[in-house]
Amino acid sequence: MRDLKSSETYSLAVLSAVCLAILVNAWKSNGEPLFSSLALSGLAFVFCYTLVLWTGDVFMKRGYKGRDMSKKNPTEIPETMGLVCALVYLLAIIIFLPFAFKRDIVEVTSGAGNKDRVLEAQDLEHGRFLHRFPLEKLASYGFAYATIASETILGILDDSFDMRWRHKFFIPAFAALPMLGLYFVDFGVTHVVVPLPFRPYFGELIDMGGFYYIYMAAICIFCPNSINMLAGINGIEVAQSIVIAFLIVLNDVLYLSPEGHPAAESHLFSIYLLLPLIGVSAALLMHNWFPAKVFVGDTYCYFAGIVFAVVGILGHFSKTLLLLFIPQIFNFIYSIPQLFHLVPCPRHRLPKFNARTGLLEPSVATFAEEKPLHPMVGEVMKMLHKLKLMRIKVDSAERVTESSNFTILNLWLVWRGPLREDRLAIEILIMQTSVGLLGLWIRHSLALLLFTVDNR
Amino acid sequence: MRDLKSSETYSLAVLSAVCLAILVNAWKSNGEPLFSSLALSGLAFVFCYTLVLWTGDVFMKRGYKGRDMSKKNPTEIPETMGLVCALVYLLAIIIFLPFAFKRDIVEVTSGAGNKDRVLEAQDLEHGRFLHRFPLEKLASYGFAYATIASETILGILDDSFDMRWRHKFFIPAFAALPMLGLYFVDFGVTHVVVPLPFRPYFGELIDMGGFYYIYMAAICIFCPNSINMLAGINGIEVAQSIVIAFLIVLNDVLYLSPEGHPAAESHLFSIYLLLPLIGVSAALLMHNWFPAKVFVGDTYCYFAGIVFAVVGILGHFSKTLLLLFIPQIFNFIYSIPQLFHLVPCPRHRLPKFNARTGLLEPSVATFAEEKPLHPMVGEVMKMLHKLKLMRIKVDSAERVTESSNFTILNLWLVWRGPLREDRLAIEILIMQTSVGLLGLWIRHSLALLLFTVDNR
Repeated sequence: MRDLKSSETYSLAVLSAVCLAILVNAWKSNGEPLFSSLALSGLAFVFCYTLVLWTGDVFMKRGYKGRDMSKKNPTEIPETMGLVCALVYLLAIIIFLPFAFKRDIVEVTSGAGNKDRVLEAQDLEHGRFLHRFPLEKLASYGFAYATIASETILGILDDSFDMRWRHKFFIPAFAALPMLGLYFVDFGVTHVVVPLPFRPYFGELIDMGGFYYIYMAAICIFCPNSINMLAGINGIEVAQSIVIAFLIVLNDVLYLSPEGHPAAESHLFSIYLLLPLIGVSAALLMHNWFPAKVFVGDTYCYFAGIVFAVVGILGHFSKTLLLLFIPQIFNFIYSIPQLFHLVPCPRHRLPKFNARTGLLEPSVATFAEEKPLHPMVGEVMKMLHKLKLMRIKVDSAERVTESSNFTILNLWLVWRGPLREDRLAIEILIMQTSVGLLGLWIRHSLALLLFTVDNR
Repeated sequence: MRDLKSSETYSLAVLSAVCLAILVNAWKSNGEPLFSSLALSGLAFVFCYTLVLWTGDVFMKRGYKGRDMSKKNPTEIPETMGLVCALVYLLAIIIFLPFAFKRDIVEVTSGAGNKDRVLEAQDLEHGRFLHRFPLEKLASYGFAYATIASETILGILDDSFDMRWRHKFFIPAFAALPMLGLYFVDFGVTHVVVPLPFRPYFGELIDMGGFYYIYMAAICIFCPNSINMLAGINGIEVAQSIVIAFLIVLNDVLYLSPEGHPAAESHLFSIYLLLPLIGVSAALLMHNWFPAKVFVGDTYCYFAGIVFAVVGILGHFSKTLLLLFIPQIFNFIYSIPQLFHLVPCPRHRLPKFNARTGLLEPSVATFAEEKPLHPMVGEVMKMLHKLKLMRIKVDSAERVTESSNFTILNLWLVWRGPLREDRLAIEILIMQTSVGLLGLWIRHSLALLLFTVDNR
C-alpha cells in the first residue's frame, strides 16, 4: 500500500489530539460516557484509517486479495480489510468500559473493591444522570463483546476457507449463542405485546417461549447475511452499514429525555456500541469508496451485521431494527428465485461494467435453449417486466431467454439506466436513508394505533 | 485426512450417548452444573476429535501445513489445528451457560423474566448448594469468553501472518484487555497480603494500584508464550496444558468442602472453564501425539495459555497458578541468553533428529570463529557445563565453539542421552507433574508459615 500523506498525517494528528484531550477530561470528571464514547470513536477512526493502509501488503502476501472487475485496468487490491475494523472496534469498546462505569465504581464500591453494592445500587437509581448506565449492564456488555468477537472469528474462517453458500448462511447463528445464552439466563422475557386488532383472539401478551429464541437467532442470521447480499459495488457494504447505524442512533436519541425513560439504558447501550462502529466504518469507507483501494471481505459484513443484531436484541428493539433493513429485506426477497434456483443463478450477480462507457449496466442471467424456464416462471417474469420490476428479453417464440439479475442494484440500473459506480452507490444510499427515516416515522406514529401507546 | 474407523465411530457414539443422557437428566433436575460440565466436556471431546480429522484437508488447502522434521520421511500435515479446539471450546462453554445458572434463573426470576432479584438473591445465598454459582458470576463468564475469543483471533492472525517474535510476545496483552476491564469495573481489588516476615515494614496489606494491572497483564502475556516456548516435539504443547489443567482442577477441588468456603465459587468457575479445555485438548492430543498427524499451531498455545490466565486472575489464585508453571518459567529463564541474543540463537532450537538411530539429540548453536563469544559469556557457559546445565565444546584455545541450545528439552537430552520423541515427551510430562504436585503441597503448607493461615 502506501504511507500516510503529510496532509493525512496532520489531520489525523489533530483529530487524535482533540479526542485524547476529551478523554482525559472525561476521566477527570467521573467518566462522562457519552463524550468518551465519541472521543474513542474518533481515535478508532484514526487507528483504523492508518492500520488499513499499513497492513494492506501483509494481507495481500497471505493471499487475501482480489481484482476489482468493475474497473478498466483491474489491479490486485487487499481483501478482508474489515478484519482490521473489527479488531480496532473490539479494542475501542473495551477501552470504553472503565469510562462507562467509572461513576458507578467510585460511588458504589466506595473506592477499593468494597462489594456492598446490592443495597447502594438502589439509592443510586434516583441520582443517576441522563447518560449513565449501571453495573447491571456489565454482563450484557461482556456478552455483546463475546458475540461480536465470535462473529469476527467466523468471518475470518469464511474469508479464509471457501465455504458453500448454504453453510455460510447459518454461521452467524453460532456466533449468536453467547447472546442467546445471556438472554436466557438474564432476561428470559419471551412475551410479545399483541397489536390491538388481534387482542380479542390472543390477549394482550403472547408467550412465544422457545420460538422467541428462534426469532432472535433468525435476526442474527439475517442482519449479517443481508448486508453481505446487498454488495458488489465499491463502498456499498460499508456505507449502508453507516446509514443503518446513524438511523439506529437517531432512534436511540428519542429515548434520552431529561425526565428519564425506562428504556433509556438499553438505548444508551446501543449508542455506545454504535458510535465506534461508525468510527471504524468511516475509516474503512475512505479506502473502500470508489475507486476502491481495498475490499472489505465477508468479515466486515458479518461484523457490522452482528453489531446491529446485538444492539437490537439486547436493547429490546429488534422489530424497529428490521424497519431499518427494508432495502436489505427487499433485496433478499427479490433474490429468492435465484437463491433457491427457481431461476438459474450465475456465479456473480454484481452489475456489469461496460469498459467502453465506464458505466455499470444491469448484469443478466441467460437461459439456455436446452434448459428453458418453466413456462409459469416465464409468465411471472413477463408480468414483473411489465411492472418494471425487472428487464427480460424474449425470443421469436415468446420464450424468456434473458433477464436482469435479481438484486436491488441491477433493478435500480434497470430503472435509472447505466450509471457510474459511485453514482449508483450514492443513489442507493439516499434511497436507503429515505426509506429508513420513513420507517422510523411510521413506527412511532403507527405504534399509537396498534399498541394504544408509543412506547418511546 | 481420513474418515473415522468403525471402532472410533463406535466408541465416540457410545461416549456421546452417555454424555447426552447425563445432560438431559441434569437439565431435568435444575441444571446440575458439575455433571453437565463433565458431560459437555465429553461431547466437546467427541466433536473436536472428529472435526480435526474432517477439516485437516481444508486447512492444508489454505496453506496451513508443515513438515515434521523429526521423522524419517516427513510428509506435509495440517497446521493450526488448535483453532478447531478453540472453536469447539467456546461453543461448549456457551452451551454450558443455561445449565450453570438454571436453578438461579428458575428460583430468582420466578419463571419468566420477573426481575425482582436484587432482594431475593440475598435469601438464596443461604440455600445454595455446593456446586452452584450465582448470577453475579454472569459478567465474569461473559468477559472470560470475550478474552478467550479475542486471544483466538490473535492466534489466527499469528498463524496466518508471519509476525516477528518481539511483536508476537505482547499480543496476549491486548486479548487480556476485556478481562482487565472487567476487573477494574467489577472487583477493583488491588491489595495484596504481605507475608509475615515483611509485615513490620509494609503492614498487612499493600495496595499495588496500577501495578496490579501490569502484573495481571504480565500473567496474560506469560502463560500463552511460555507454553508456546516449551514446544518442538510431538504432543508436548497439548500434553503440558492438560497436566496444568488437571493440577489446577486438583487445587480447585480442595476448596469445595461441604461446609462451604468463601472462595468456592471462584474455584467452581475455574473448574467449569477447565473441564472443557481438558476435553478438547485430549481430543487434539490423540492426533498430535507421536507420530503426529496434525500440528497445533500457535493458536493452540495462545488459547490454552489464556484460559489458564483467565481462571487464575478471575479466580484470584494467580500466584498459585505460577507455581504450576515452574517448568515453563525455568525454560523461559534458561532461554533468556538466546532470546536476548547474548548468545547466538539459531532459527529453530528444537532437539535434533538423528535419522540413523531414530532418536532425538540436543540441538546445538555454533559460534563462528570470526564472531566469537564474549570471553565472560564463555566462562559462564563453562561453569554451567561443569554444573551439567548445558553441554559445550571448546577448541584447542579453550574457546567455546558450540553449545547445546538453551531449552529445557535440550537440557533434558543432555542429562538423559538420546531419546525417542515420545519417550522424551513422557519424561518431561512426568517431571512437570511431579514439580506441580510438589508446588501445590508447598503452597498449602508454606502458606501457614508466611501468612499465618492457609487460605484454603
